[in-house]
Amino acid sequence: MAEGRRIQEDVPYLALDIGGSLIKLVYFSRSEQSPAEEDDANLIKALENTSHPVHGGWLHFVKFETREINQCLDFIKFKQLHCQVGTDPENKQTAAKVKVTGSGAHKFADLFMEKIGVTVEKEDEMDCLAVGANFLLKVFQNEAFTFIEGEKESVDIDENDLFPYLLVNIGSGVSIHKVTGDGTSEAVDGTRIGGIACWGLGRLLTKCKSFNEIVELSKYGSLKRIDLFVEDTFGDQKYVDKSNAPPDMNIGSFGKAISENRTLEDCKAEDISLSLLEMISQNIGQIASLNARIYGIQRIFFGGSFIKDNTCALETLSSSVHFQTNGEAKAMFLQHEGFVGAVGALMRYENKHGLLIKDESQNVDTTL
Amino acid sequence: MAEGRRIQEDVPYLALDIGGSLIKLVYFSRSEQSPAEEDDANLIKALENTSHPVHGGWLHFVKFETREINQCLDFIKFKQLHCQVGTDPENKQTAAKVKVTGSGAHKFADLFMEKIGVTVEKEDEMDCLAVGANFLLKVFQNEAFTFIEGEKESVDIDENDLFPYLLVNIGSGVSIHKVTGDGTSEAVDGTRIGGIACWGLGRLLTKCKSFNEIVELSKYGSLKRIDLFVEDTFGDQKYVDKSNAPPDMNIGSFGKAISENRTLEDCKAEDISLSLLEMISQNIGQIASLNARIYGIQRIFFGGSFIKDNTCALETLSSSVHFQTNGEAKAMFLQHEGFVGAVGALMRYENKHGLLIKDESQNVDTTL
Repeated sequence: MAEGRRIQEDVPYLALDIGGSLIKLVYFSRSEQSPAEEDDANLIKALENTSHPVHGGWLHFVKFETREINQCLDFIKFKQLHCQVGTDPENKQTAAKVKVTGSGAHKFADLFMEKIGVTVEKEDEMDCLAVGANFLLKVFQNEAFTFIEGEKESVDIDENDLFPYLLVNIGSGVSIHKVTGDGTSEAVDGTRIGGIACWGLGRLLTKCKSFNEIVELSKYGSLKRIDLFVEDTFGDQKYVDKSNAPPDMNIGSFGKAISENRTLEDCKAEDISLSLLEMISQNIGQIASLNARIYGIQRIFFGGSFIKDNTCALETLSSSVHFQTNGEAKAMFLQHEGFVGAVGALMRYENKHGLLIKDESQNVDTTL
Repeated sequence: MAEGRRIQEDVPYLALDIGGSLIKLVYFSRSEQSPAEEDDANLIKALENTSHPVHGGWLHFVKFETREINQCLDFIKFKQLHCQVGTDPENKQTAAKVKVTGSGAHKFADLFMEKIGVTVEKEDEMDCLAVGANFLLKVFQNEAFTFIEGEKESVDIDENDLFPYLLVNIGSGVSIHKVTGDGTSEAVDGTRIGGIACWGLGRLLTKCKSFNEIVELSKYGSLKRIDLFVEDTFGDQKYVDKSNAPPDMNIGSFGKAISENRTLEDCKAEDISLSLLEMISQNIGQIASLNARIYGIQRIFFGGSFIKDNTCALETLSSSVHFQTNGEAKAMFLQHEGFVGAVGALMRYENKHGLLIKDESQNVDTTL
C-alpha cells in the first residue's frame, strides 16, 4: 500500500486527444520537470511542447502529427507518462489505463496496448470539449482573449458568471457546443468546412506541406487580388455610392479567378491561402452566430488548433460574429486552443489529487 | 393617342437581371413569337432560351454570360425588345426605359444608352427576388418541386397558404429572404460561399471553362475518393460500431488530400467538382436551415442558376435541410430558378396589362 501511494503521488496524469490531423497530449505533474525529463524523450521532436503552472503542479501541453503516432508513443514511454494513477509500472499484471478522446481513440487502441502496454479508455469527444473548456476558463486567469484591430486582449472571466456560453472547436472538423454548466453541455451543431477542408484545398491549390505553412503564407496575401468586392462588380467608382453595399465589401471568395480569367498558375499561393482561411473563418463565425441567436447566447469561445497563430482566423471570426449578431454576441478565444479536448479527457480520471480544487490565492497568468 | 396605344399593346415587356456571371433576360409578349422572331436575332446564340405560356401571352426566358453583354444588347435590338410600354421606337425624343436589377444595372447603364438608346431603371435586387418568387409560385402551377431520392416531384402551392417562406437565391453569391406576403419581404442573411466561390475554386482546381462544365463533371465523381468519412478515421470496421456516427458520415471535404498525401495531379477533376458542389450545397442548406429555425419557417424555396441541372445541389440541399431542421422544414426548388430576380424586375412596371391578374381557369403546367 505504501509503495502504491508513493507511485500515485509521483507519476503524472496523462490524457490524449487523437484527431484526424493532430495528437494533443496533456499531462499533469507535481514538478515542472516530468519524470525522466533528461532522458531520450528530449530527442523526440514534438510540434509543440509547453508547460504552465497550475495549482499543485504543472500542466504540460504536447502536440504531434497523427501520422507520427509512433513518435508520440515513444515520447510517452521514455517519459514514463503511462505509469498511471493507481497502477504500478513494475506490476505487469495491472495494465495501465489512459484516457483518450478523439477519433484516434478507437483507431489506435490496439497500437497503445501493443507498443506501451496501455489500455485506452475512450472518452466521449463532445463531453471532453465542454469539460476541458470549463476547466481552462476557471483555472487559468488569462485563458480567454479577444482579438480586436490586430491586438489580443485578455478577458477576465468571472467563474460565477461563466454560463451559458457557446464553445466552437475548430479542429479537422468543427463542433459547436452549448455549455450551460459544469457537466451540462450539448453538441448542437458543427460544420465539416473546418481545418481539414482548409488544409485539403490548400494543399491541392498551393502545394503547402503543412497547415501551418498555409497560415504563415496567408500573412503575405491580399484578398483584393483574388476575391471579388463590391467595387469590382459595380464598375466605375461613381456608381458605388448608389448601392447600399460598401465598396470594400467582399462578395465572392475566389471571384477574381472568374472575373479575370485566371488559372492556378496566375494566382499567388499567399493570396489563395488567405482567401481560404478568410472564407472558412467567416463561414464558421456565421454558423456559430446563427446558433448563438437560436440559443440566446452572448459569449462564443473559439478553440481548436485551426486558430493557433492564425491572425486571419482570429480577426475574421471576431468581425463575423460582430456583424452577424449586430454586436450582441462576442467572439473570444482560448489560449490553449488545441488542447481543450485533451484537458477534458484528463478531467475524466476519478481521482484527480486536487487538480480540480482551485486555490483562490493562486490564479495563474498564462499569457503566452 | 391611338398610335401610342397600338404600340403599347404590341411590344413586349422586358426586364433584366445582370449578375456577376450571368445575364437573365425576361420578356412578356402576347404571342409565342416575339416581334421580328425570324430576323437576325436567331443568329445570336443565348445560353438558354425558353418560353412558357402565362395568362394573356408568353413569358420568354433568355440567358447570356455577363461578359457577353454585347450579344445580349444585340439580341434586344434585333428583337426590338427595347420598344417599351408607353414609348414609341420611332420617336427619338422619348428614351425607352428598361427595368434592370443586379449589380450590372449600375455597371452597364451607360452601355445600354450608348448601344441601344435605353435608360436603365435600376430595381433593388433584394426586392425583385421576393416579388419574382411570389409571381412564379402563384402563376405557374408546377413552379415548385421537391427532390427526393433522385426524383423531382411537383408541389401544389396553395396561393392562399404560401406565406411565410424562406427564399434562398444561389447565384454568384447567396441571399436569404424572409417572405411574409406580397410586397413584404426582408433580406435576412446570405453567404459568399455560393456560385462564384464554387466556380472560382473549381476553375483553379480543374481547369473547367464554365460552371456548367463543373456541374456536368460532378455527375461522374465520387466523394469517397476525395472526402474523409467516419469509416476512414475510425480505422477497422470493428470499431465503427462503438461510435455514434454512422460509417458513411462525411467528416471532411477534401480530407483524403491530407490523409492520402495527394497532390492536385493525383485527384480526378470529377471528384473535385463533386466535392466542391456538395460542400457548398451542404453549407448553404445548413445556413438556410438555421435561418428557418430562427424565424420559425417551415418552407424553404431555393432559386438561382447554381441549382440548374445540378443534381448534387438538389440532393444535398434537400438532405441538409431535412437533417438540420429534424425534418421540420422542407427544401423546395423553383423551376425558373435563375430568373427569379428578372421576373421580379418585370413586375416593377406600373402598367402590366393584366399580367398579374390571374385567370383561375388557366393554371399553366410548366414541367420542363
